[in-house]
Amino acid sequence: MERARRLQKTQEYYFSRKLEEIRKMSETGIPVINLGIGNPDLPPPEKVIRKLLEIAVMKDVHGYQSYRGLPALRKAYARWYGSSYNVSLDPDREVIPLVGSKEGIFYLSMAFLNPGDKALVPDVGYPAYRSVTEMVEAIPVTYNISEKTGWYPDFRELEQLDLTGVKLMWINYPNMPSGKPAGRELFRRLVDFGMNHDILICHDNPYSFILNDRPLSILSLPEARKTAVELNSMSKTYNMAGWRMGMLAGDSEFLEPVFTVLSNVESGIFKPLQLATIQAIQTPAEWFGELNREYKKRREMVFALFDKLGCTYETESNGLFVWAKTPGGVDAFDFTDRILYDARVFITPGGIFGNNGKSFVRVSLCEDIPLLQEALKRVENII
Amino acid sequence: MERARRLQKTQEYYFSRKLEEIRKMSETGIPVINLGIGNPDLPPPEKVIRKLLEIAVMKDVHGYQSYRGLPALRKAYARWYGSSYNVSLDPDREVIPLVGSKEGIFYLSMAFLNPGDKALVPDVGYPAYRSVTEMVEAIPVTYNISEKTGWYPDFRELEQLDLTGVKLMWINYPNMPSGKPAGRELFRRLVDFGMNHDILICHDNPYSFILNDRPLSILSLPEARKTAVELNSMSKTYNMAGWRMGMLAGDSEFLEPVFTVLSNVESGIFKPLQLATIQAIQTPAEWFGELNREYKKRREMVFALFDKLGCTYETESNGLFVWAKTPGGVDAFDFTDRILYDARVFITPGGIFGNNGKSFVRVSLCEDIPLLQEALKRVENII
Repeated sequence: MERARRLQKTQEYYFSRKLEEIRKMSETGIPVINLGIGNPDLPPPEKVIRKLLEIAVMKDVHGYQSYRGLPALRKAYARWYGSSYNVSLDPDREVIPLVGSKEGIFYLSMAFLNPGDKALVPDVGYPAYRSVTEMVEAIPVTYNISEKTGWYPDFRELEQLDLTGVKLMWINYPNMPSGKPAGRELFRRLVDFGMNHDILICHDNPYSFILNDRPLSILSLPEARKTAVELNSMSKTYNMAGWRMGMLAGDSEFLEPVFTVLSNVESGIFKPLQLATIQAIQTPAEWFGELNREYKKRREMVFALFDKLGCTYETESNGLFVWAKTPGGVDAFDFTDRILYDARVFITPGGIFGNNGKSFVRVSLCEDIPLLQEALKRVENII
Repeated sequence: MERARRLQKTQEYYFSRKLEEIRKMSETGIPVINLGIGNPDLPPPEKVIRKLLEIAVMKDVHGYQSYRGLPALRKAYARWYGSSYNVSLDPDREVIPLVGSKEGIFYLSMAFLNPGDKALVPDVGYPAYRSVTEMVEAIPVTYNISEKTGWYPDFRELEQLDLTGVKLMWINYPNMPSGKPAGRELFRRLVDFGMNHDILICHDNPYSFILNDRPLSILSLPEARKTAVELNSMSKTYNMAGWRMGMLAGDSEFLEPVFTVLSNVESGIFKPLQLATIQAIQTPAEWFGELNREYKKRREMVFALFDKLGCTYETESNGLFVWAKTPGGVDAFDFTDRILYDARVFITPGGIFGNNGKSFVRVSLCEDIPLLQEALKRVENII
């Protein structure tokens, strides 16, 4: 039985294969220190866990839930957008709860891309934008986010691209992998670009509370909701990556087709997880102060690691990662493989995020100080 | 922004719209008794909840999980297939945990159906088989499961269909909505049919423990795994519908393309839910005795309800529903709307499962005896 053509270009997700290799390496010999993945190691707020337990013991919370999520969850997401981003959302029409924001990338592509249509995908960027575009038999059109452009889109270059057939544009600030912050001027230009070319700007916003004091939503720009939607997530915000609680916000004109896909693919979200997420959203703002103090300490350790490795980096970065250039710009796949096999430390080669990342590496802040110290020691031993 | 062509035939899932109508009706006046949905109202085994609580309080269980699920979960699913169905599965290669078996329908269709390919879908049958086929721009080819065929496929009719381009066949026994049991002879003929025509038989098996003493997997037939895969679920088996714990079993040749789709769409399953599911699978067999005693009592009440309504039915039925013919074969949409608006009791019109169901109705066993008594009373008042 031949697999469908739509999978010809799609491979198993890179990390899925690499983690398997790391797991096998760790079975024989010293366990690998994995600094590759942005998987928060710290727990969610205590009250969130307590709410989960309180609800899970009830007898009537184990059945199917509405495809649209509990009204109270949608209201909570809308309140969150109001208080965090100064964006007013109608909870009944402008919010869709998702099983993680990653599936939103796929649902948006299913909803709006015909085979042969095009989507603008950033190089560098999260690999799923490209693989999902290919999986719906649409054509990814690369735009550059590179060292040369300061890791921001170059609007002159964008305007010079052949935009015929382009329906969607994927964008993500605070940016992964570069750590560059979001900005109102950037978002204003994106909204103009979307309006001028009739392109749906799909903004992926999971990092806005991490090492960043000024969370920003593209939907806060005037007229943004005529041309933009936004994915968001509890994963990094409240250390709930495994919970798979995400959401899509925007005008109902854009959300309804997404909902049509969703309601034919899945069957709602476990009620205790929904109610505990409402609790999460009520966490006082001090949470972020404490969380980011820890990430800042870790970031200093990662800087030290990069210094040892001869990598160069910028000291201001948003999000869960530090992005750095390899010594002399050597190929990052070779560079990281050497570190993996010689020092048993895994850091991510920037090439998996696109060609513009091939001389860069990404290190996650999701391991604690003692492990980062151990990684530093291991790296010192191979230099 | 126009929605993609693949959604032209796809509507919001029927129940999603109907439940909204029922919710609005219930806001003004007497709440509607909903006997439409197969959503188990009874709780999961106590030990399962306890395991969930025990794991959820741990600090290191809230991060992303592997796309393939915990090895221990795959082993548990494989053991379950061994002890329940006498089917031996390699947990590393022949089991994929899913966020509910419903998404497996979509992933299989994405993995194997090119635009223009065909899939055999049963009329009557679960509506998602058809809508998902259309969503991947493939063509649903209807085969009949009707009163005339005793609600089983007619293999003579199947052989006479134009099978050019048919890649998949959807099938489900114990059958929803008719309640007809699975059988080895049926599965043997399906395996032959699949082998002869190079069609992947996709068997959907969520009801095999409900009002049925002899759970059967199509994979237990010799040579079945050369041509068949099976979806299964915790939803009905252990009253865990909201948990979204399902799985796909079969040869790795068929599972790997499904996994390629999955790993680009989602990001693993919450660890406490995975570990509690392993606990569920260890539930002693007495569980089913007790569960089915309750469902049998309820089924008697549903028979009484159908007697009042002048509907005819068979008394042996597997699964969570009773299927019955309307009085004189009148249109079931009209018939059920009258009951909904006059008696404020919702029962499912068989027409939503296909043309062959248009004179039939389906009542769920997922409400308790007092509510079924109340429904009976309400129906008596309008007759």
